[in-house]
Amino acid sequence: MQNNLFIYNTLSKKKELFIPIHPPFAGIYVCGPTVYGDAHLGHARPAITFDLLFRYLLHLDYKVRYVRNITDVGHLENDADEGEDKIEKKARLEEKQPMEVAQFYINRYHLLMNKLGVLPPTIEPLASGHILEQAKLISTLIKKGFAYKTESGAVYFNIKEYQRKYESYGRLSGRNLDDLYSNTRILQGQSEKLNSFDFALWKIADSNHLMKWNPYPFRNGYPGWHLECTAMSTKYLGKKFDIHGGGIDLLFPHHECEMAQSFAAYGKDSVKYWMHNNLITINGQKMGKSLGNFITLEQLFKGSHPLLNKDYSPMTIRFFILQSHYRSLVDFSNESLLAAESSLTKILKAIEIIKKIKPSNTSTLDINSLNNKCYEALNDDLNTPVLISCLFEGVKYINSLNEGLDKINSDDIETLKNLMNTFVFKILGLENEKNNDKDEPFIEELIDASLNIRQIIKLNKDWSTSDKIREELNKIGILIKDRKNDVGWERE
Amino acid sequence: MQNNLFIYNTLSKKKELFIPIHPPFAGIYVCGPTVYGDAHLGHARPAITFDLLFRYLLHLDYKVRYVRNITDVGHLENDADEGEDKIEKKARLEEKQPMEVAQFYINRYHLLMNKLGVLPPTIEPLASGHILEQAKLISTLIKKGFAYKTESGAVYFNIKEYQRKYESYGRLSGRNLDDLYSNTRILQGQSEKLNSFDFALWKIADSNHLMKWNPYPFRNGYPGWHLECTAMSTKYLGKKFDIHGGGIDLLFPHHECEMAQSFAAYGKDSVKYWMHNNLITINGQKMGKSLGNFITLEQLFKGSHPLLNKDYSPMTIRFFILQSHYRSLVDFSNESLLAAESSLTKILKAIEIIKKIKPSNTSTLDINSLNNKCYEALNDDLNTPVLISCLFEGVKYINSLNEGLDKINSDDIETLKNLMNTFVFKILGLENEKNNDKDEPFIEELIDASLNIRQIIKLNKDWSTSDKIREELNKIGILIKDRKNDVGWERE
Repeated sequence: MQNNLFIYNTLSKKKELFIPIHPPFAGIYVCGPTVYGDAHLGHARPAITFDLLFRYLLHLDYKVRYVRNITDVGHLENDADEGEDKIEKKARLEEKQPMEVAQFYINRYHLLMNKLGVLPPTIEPLASGHILEQAKLISTLIKKGFAYKTESGAVYFNIKEYQRKYESYGRLSGRNLDDLYSNTRILQGQSEKLNSFDFALWKIADSNHLMKWNPYPFRNGYPGWHLECTAMSTKYLGKKFDIHGGGIDLLFPHHECEMAQSFAAYGKDSVKYWMHNNLITINGQKMGKSLGNFITLEQLFKGSHPLLNKDYSPMTIRFFILQSHYRSLVDFSNESLLAAESSLTKILKAIEIIKKIKPSNTSTLDINSLNNKCYEALNDDLNTPVLISCLFEGVKYINSLNEGLDKINSDDIETLKNLMNTFVFKILGLENEKNNDKDEPFIEELIDASLNIRQIIKLNKDWSTSDKIREELNKIGILIKDRKNDVGWERE
Repeated sequence: MQNNLFIYNTLSKKKELFIPIHPPFAGIYVCGPTVYGDAHLGHARPAITFDLLFRYLLHLDYKVRYVRNITDVGHLENDADEGEDKIEKKARLEEKQPMEVAQFYINRYHLLMNKLGVLPPTIEPLASGHILEQAKLISTLIKKGFAYKTESGAVYFNIKEYQRKYESYGRLSGRNLDDLYSNTRILQGQSEKLNSFDFALWKIADSNHLMKWNPYPFRNGYPGWHLECTAMSTKYLGKKFDIHGGGIDLLFPHHECEMAQSFAAYGKDSVKYWMHNNLITINGQKMGKSLGNFITLEQLFKGSHPLLNKDYSPMTIRFFILQSHYRSLVDFSNESLLAAESSLTKILKAIEIIKKIKPSNTSTLDINSLNNKCYEALNDDLNTPVLISCLFEGVKYINSLNEGLDKINSDDIETLKNLMNTFVFKILGLENEKNNDKDEPFIEELIDASLNIRQIIKLNKDWSTSDKIREELNKIGILIKDRKNDVGWERE
């Protein structure tokens, strides 16, 4: 088994060899969705990026515990801890209980992720289900002097104190605290804070706030957003765990605050490797509701958005995302999606063709070297564009073998088949969406039956009827190929 | 809209008119699965029964909040509050964190329920996510004098005190407390209890117990099983809600204890209507792991259990369960499943046939009366066997119309179509599993192409080839029917 996976650590800003803390176990925590709306393109990228990591670590025989949370409480409309809870706001708009709204979008999220071939994480904790753990963490932070309770009962993290003791706020994101101070506007209601950059650990609910708890000694409120990830990651993975992932948009303030919380509480970094996927732009612009370029996954799958020329299947989206390295910016356009669709089709066709290729005694192709290159690509910080170019090398081989321009022995055929299947389906997690039909074998039988009939007719030398069969099948997209020794067909 | 639904209330032992507390809202709480193993037949019945209720109330235009919990903690191996937590035991066997085991079986449960056409509930709370709410309920019970803390820190519900004040323990299940006392064995570890029938509200975790919490003022433990349902039902539906459902096996002690808890805490019954589905036996025997007749849903769908002659599709199972009234015992056998499969096929075929029936000027059939009978059946405590017999009346009508023995006008055709579609698909939640193939239209095109070719050959008077086409199609299960004016076909 290959054991030289390097991953880029946002903290050290270097590619580092992945050495898990407790091999053969590997622990991953990834920030999941806030469930107040339908999943969009911005949700697809981290989900697919860390699904790839999950799948690859499983392939490398690690026992992976993959925790991806669901934020069903406490994520406020803006990062400055003011505004209305997003789920509550939606609930008020829809006249429902907040948990009904959350559950609805949790179910939708699962459905959409399943379509994208994203495996479910091994634990998927809800923020609302871990209030006690969050309260305990607040108590620890107060006890250690890094958090303070205000008159209202709210609790804030004391960044100045943290900075005084550890000088490390900003270490992950590279932000400079002094710069941050000078750029901060004083927002309404922030007067409670000792410093404008202190962030909320416990917020007091106002009278019409439905989501609130009373975990002793905190009352009548709800936890700040950054808290849940620290509480749940350390609960399920331990106070020191391997990998923390998420979108680069979460790097600051969310992950910086998470890091400060766990360092302040436990006196050390909880996370060994921080990984961040880059963002998706739409025709070069940032995605945003106000810009009218906010495309949900459902709209993509159905082609029901003014910016879309057609529908794009979930696997086209997945392949499109994997075509770029996860740390590169991806720009989304109809052209690039069409190109992805066509590339994926080529790969999937080659995987069908290889099933029919017959072995020779010798090989003119170096399959083992191709296999190694595939692993090298992934081991180099999950370099999927390089991996995919290797897979296209495989496609070239297969087409060349199919045309009789190259030869391959039976061992190499097995290696090549295995390589294509393993990387395309198991690790990249792609699927042949056409093969999802359980009637595929029946369709093959039906077409074969028609070709058998045509064979009888040809034996009768009834060329005109034989041509009509070709035409009839052609009409519905079946191309008949008369070859030297047999008849082949292809479905458009 | 029909508004005379009667449901059998286990508490009053009578059929009662359903009048929701806050119309147009209707609140339902149903005890969901304990997630320590794969869902089996015993899980299918309550899920399908209350899915029917959920669908019917939605059809009647109620705004339904349907809460079905997941027990991921605290359900002990035997009902006497001793033994090892089922999920922990499984985790130890599988060398995983308890939450990994729970998550695995939650995902499996969702997948299997989805196959059975069971809609997701509107809120699906986890017991482990509501420890605070449970602790609060314990505090209330202690304050009101119905619970006591032992030296170890455990808390028990005081049944004698409850009985002294309210004389109502046993009111739901019909059990008599004195009889219960005389039949109780004294189990190990029960010495802490004041009375052998007191049940645990808070248990102290031993040193290797992984699932434990510290909700002030309770320490180092986990809630008793009965507690979660009272805490979560009242949290999401209010202290008084409409319907509480579950299997009859939960009537005692679980629901009796729930009822005692909420009555003791709030001084009134929380539940207006208690509904219980009956059990499933296998060839006349109770299902049990030790009896070797424990059949999981997966095994049923695959036919992979020694007791099964073949595989049975999810919709066959669903129809089989709905064929009996939910309060009747259902006996499971290959014969009865085959019969269900065949009956369902007849109904689905009729729904296909009706699409092609052409209207006359008059009707010889009374469709409105049939429509009313369908509603009457469901309004009579969800009497699905009567509903299904009405649907078979509809099938008879359709077949008779198809054979030209009866006539129907265009309004009545619409009513009949609508009736069949509404009750079969929307309310009974059945699906035509064959229609799930997206390639169905393509298969029709392919078969039509073959028949077109055969038509050409017949025009050429090449009878031998024409027969061969019939044979080729016959081989793969397509039966050709030469009729007066055209050619039909049917897929076996």
